[in-house]
Amino acid sequence: MNRRSLLKGGLLAGIGLPFLSPADLLAQSKPLAKKAKNIIMLVSDGMSIGTLNMADLYANRTFGKSTNWIQLYKDSKVTRALMDTASASSLVTDSAAASSSWGGGMRVKNGSLNVGPKGETPQPILQKFKHSGKKVGCVTTVPITHATPAGFCVNIDSRDGQDEIAEMYLKLKFDVMLGGGSMHFDAKRKDGTIIPQFQAQGFKVAQNREEMMHLTNAGPVLGIFAPDGLPYELDRKNSPELMKSTPSLAEMMSKAISLMKDNPKGFALQVEGGKVDWAAHGNDTGGLIFDQLAFDEAVGQAIEFAEKDGETLVIITTDHGNANPGLFYGDSNKDFDRIQHFKHSNEWILNQLNNSSSEKNVAELIEAGTGIGVTAAEAKQLLAHFSDIIPGQLYNAANLPFNELAKIQAKYTLVQWAGMNHTADYVELTMFGPGSEALKPFIKNYELHNFMLNAAALSSEFLAPVVKS
Amino acid sequence: MNRRSLLKGGLLAGIGLPFLSPADLLAQSKPLAKKAKNIIMLVSDGMSIGTLNMADLYANRTFGKSTNWIQLYKDSKVTRALMDTASASSLVTDSAAASSSWGGGMRVKNGSLNVGPKGETPQPILQKFKHSGKKVGCVTTVPITHATPAGFCVNIDSRDGQDEIAEMYLKLKFDVMLGGGSMHFDAKRKDGTIIPQFQAQGFKVAQNREEMMHLTNAGPVLGIFAPDGLPYELDRKNSPELMKSTPSLAEMMSKAISLMKDNPKGFALQVEGGKVDWAAHGNDTGGLIFDQLAFDEAVGQAIEFAEKDGETLVIITTDHGNANPGLFYGDSNKDFDRIQHFKHSNEWILNQLNNSSSEKNVAELIEAGTGIGVTAAEAKQLLAHFSDIIPGQLYNAANLPFNELAKIQAKYTLVQWAGMNHTADYVELTMFGPGSEALKPFIKNYELHNFMLNAAALSSEFLAPVVKS
Repeated sequence: MNRRSLLKGGLLAGIGLPFLSPADLLAQSKPLAKKAKNIIMLVSDGMSIGTLNMADLYANRTFGKSTNWIQLYKDSKVTRALMDTASASSLVTDSAAASSSWGGGMRVKNGSLNVGPKGETPQPILQKFKHSGKKVGCVTTVPITHATPAGFCVNIDSRDGQDEIAEMYLKLKFDVMLGGGSMHFDAKRKDGTIIPQFQAQGFKVAQNREEMMHLTNAGPVLGIFAPDGLPYELDRKNSPELMKSTPSLAEMMSKAISLMKDNPKGFALQVEGGKVDWAAHGNDTGGLIFDQLAFDEAVGQAIEFAEKDGETLVIITTDHGNANPGLFYGDSNKDFDRIQHFKHSNEWILNQLNNSSSEKNVAELIEAGTGIGVTAAEAKQLLAHFSDIIPGQLYNAANLPFNELAKIQAKYTLVQWAGMNHTADYVELTMFGPGSEALKPFIKNYELHNFMLNAAALSSEFLAPVVKS
Repeated sequence: MNRRSLLKGGLLAGIGLPFLSPADLLAQSKPLAKKAKNIIMLVSDGMSIGTLNMADLYANRTFGKSTNWIQLYKDSKVTRALMDTASASSLVTDSAAASSSWGGGMRVKNGSLNVGPKGETPQPILQKFKHSGKKVGCVTTVPITHATPAGFCVNIDSRDGQDEIAEMYLKLKFDVMLGGGSMHFDAKRKDGTIIPQFQAQGFKVAQNREEMMHLTNAGPVLGIFAPDGLPYELDRKNSPELMKSTPSLAEMMSKAISLMKDNPKGFALQVEGGKVDWAAHGNDTGGLIFDQLAFDEAVGQAIEFAEKDGETLVIITTDHGNANPGLFYGDSNKDFDRIQHFKHSNEWILNQLNNSSSEKNVAELIEAGTGIGVTAAEAKQLLAHFSDIIPGQLYNAANLPFNELAKIQAKYTLVQWAGMNHTADYVELTMFGPGSEALKPFIKNYELHNFMLNAAALSSEFLAPVVKS
């Protein structure tokens, strides 16, 4: 069976696939009650249902209240769907194909950004919104040139071309681009910095939290707050230095909204909690839960804005599952509550260890990072995995024993993982505001493209062609 | 924070918890448009979201159509919620506490069946429905005395008292009880068979598929089709003998409906796909997916009945996640498609191996069961785990290397597991028919008790007392 269920109209001539009207096919089932002037799409990248669930359990047990996301359900304020996240090449998508499905309205192969299996190059959604007169932007905790923001902005064969994507952003002159990835803009590029070119094009460039806070809406803005991804929220909030230098996702989002909200034709903004995915890849429980909570803070502020504004559609979702973590059966809830004492991510712990570390170093770092006192045998077990990491060499995250540390940690927290990569799980999709009433209970990721365009009542010329899968 | 958020009213005197009217608190938000004369509650026990998802992916790729459950979403025929499944003693419930929350309207400790933390004994919901004039029953693929059916029927300190639960069923004289667990009724009981007592009380007793098919609604019926759990669907459908002796879940359900549907005051029926949970505990991919599909067949038939009937509320859910499996990222969808060639469960494979088996035996059995050709090294690796199993001794499932086989299998199917026990995941809850319109997007498991009573418009004297958590 052909999983590639959406093809560009022009390519279908002669192969007999039935064209159906968008009304037959889209996730929208009813006429719009009201047009969405603004769209904020929040993506907790790589969020399995257990991630949403454990963040909510943590919030309930620590703060005595639900996450903002789950509270929307308790208050019956939103519509919900399950979303099928497959790509053109696999039942399990990567973030490039996933964002492209939303951004371009068609499924592409894993690794591509809005370049279809037959070379199609659908116009990315933020270009459409920009063309229609809206202000547009992206904010993320990973590089702003990374797959999820890029899938709303550009067409490029490979997500790996982040330096090239940075150059594309220069030409696009989108209004607000905030995140990490300064290495793709500054002197770390092999062809040298392009930041002066951004400034010459009228961009204001911020490179720390303070500079971001002072940005005004006099022109397009670029904010790049770390060479690669931003720090994990858990590490940030326990470091006065990082708190000063690096904004939170909610701070970036609020800034972006404030820079765009007075535009007469509104705005479209993508907000990515990108390090939720990185934490899942690293089976990093502290990284995961606190970045999900940081994402949830952005959810709360987006809803607060939308409730006051009344013309904003807020979409909250993820692009795919990752690692399928869960809180497992055990004798006591106190195990899960240990996470309340976590101070640092597992990345913070492992980056300070190498093959000349002692068992004592290991135990002390785990204690400092998580409050967990591991046994000497466990410290030894972890240390054994550093044997092939050469101290003084270039840092290579792939060799760090994330999985091994997670297994040791699971004995204390009862949080377990099914793997270290993406899954095919159908995912949670939530909508608030004008247009949300049209959401049906099950949609395919690419259907969100036309859904957003229709919610904003963009002219039908912008719609992606649709064929029945 | 006290997780025990529902207590019997009488116990609250003096501790100052506010009583709120059911209308404030229940999952129902709107007045009923129409009363549900019949209720069918279908429980895929221990179904993580990945289980629902993989069964649907399998159905799409094998049959070219969705599962019945997901098709209900595509057709916008149902309302959906996420359900919090905690028990009184843990964030992660067992099946006894979970079924009790629905059956008794309050959270109890894991292991208990409708006996509260302070000794409360709320009347189980099928007793209430029976009292109101409805016919009532349970069907399951595990023992009919097991936690999930028992939680709708009886009050008993420990779920382990299955022999005692069988005696309670004798006194209750419910209309239709079909499943496994004959060892709790027949001569395998230490006090001897009680089947003659059932017959003396007017029960018709069926012990195979044929006898079940001939049951009439002249009196209460007991059907017990295996000593313990019924065979996995995958093993059943590949064994002419089992197909003859053992009914499917859908066949048991259809029989139950046909025996109860003409009752003037309607019926209430619980339908459990109990071996989905057992397969998850065993990380048994074939067991899991085909039992989920067998459950889905029952879903389809329940909806078909309810659509014709027009007065039936169908509730489809699970009691908790289990093992959080997922289809993981890989090079090709062909790996997942190997499951199309599976002929037997991993239980079938492992039960035929012991510590005198050869590597060749292992490879041949895996090939016969799944079509997968494992390497000699993998066969050896699996065999190593039989070293502490003594041939000729009493079979002990706990010692069989289910996890090890799952890990080997995962290299070929890309299906991976996060553990071998229940999880705290919020779970999928779906409703169809009269009353379903009142479902809010998030509910706690115990709220379903009053929800069902209200949907059926039972007198308010039957409602469980409700306090705000």
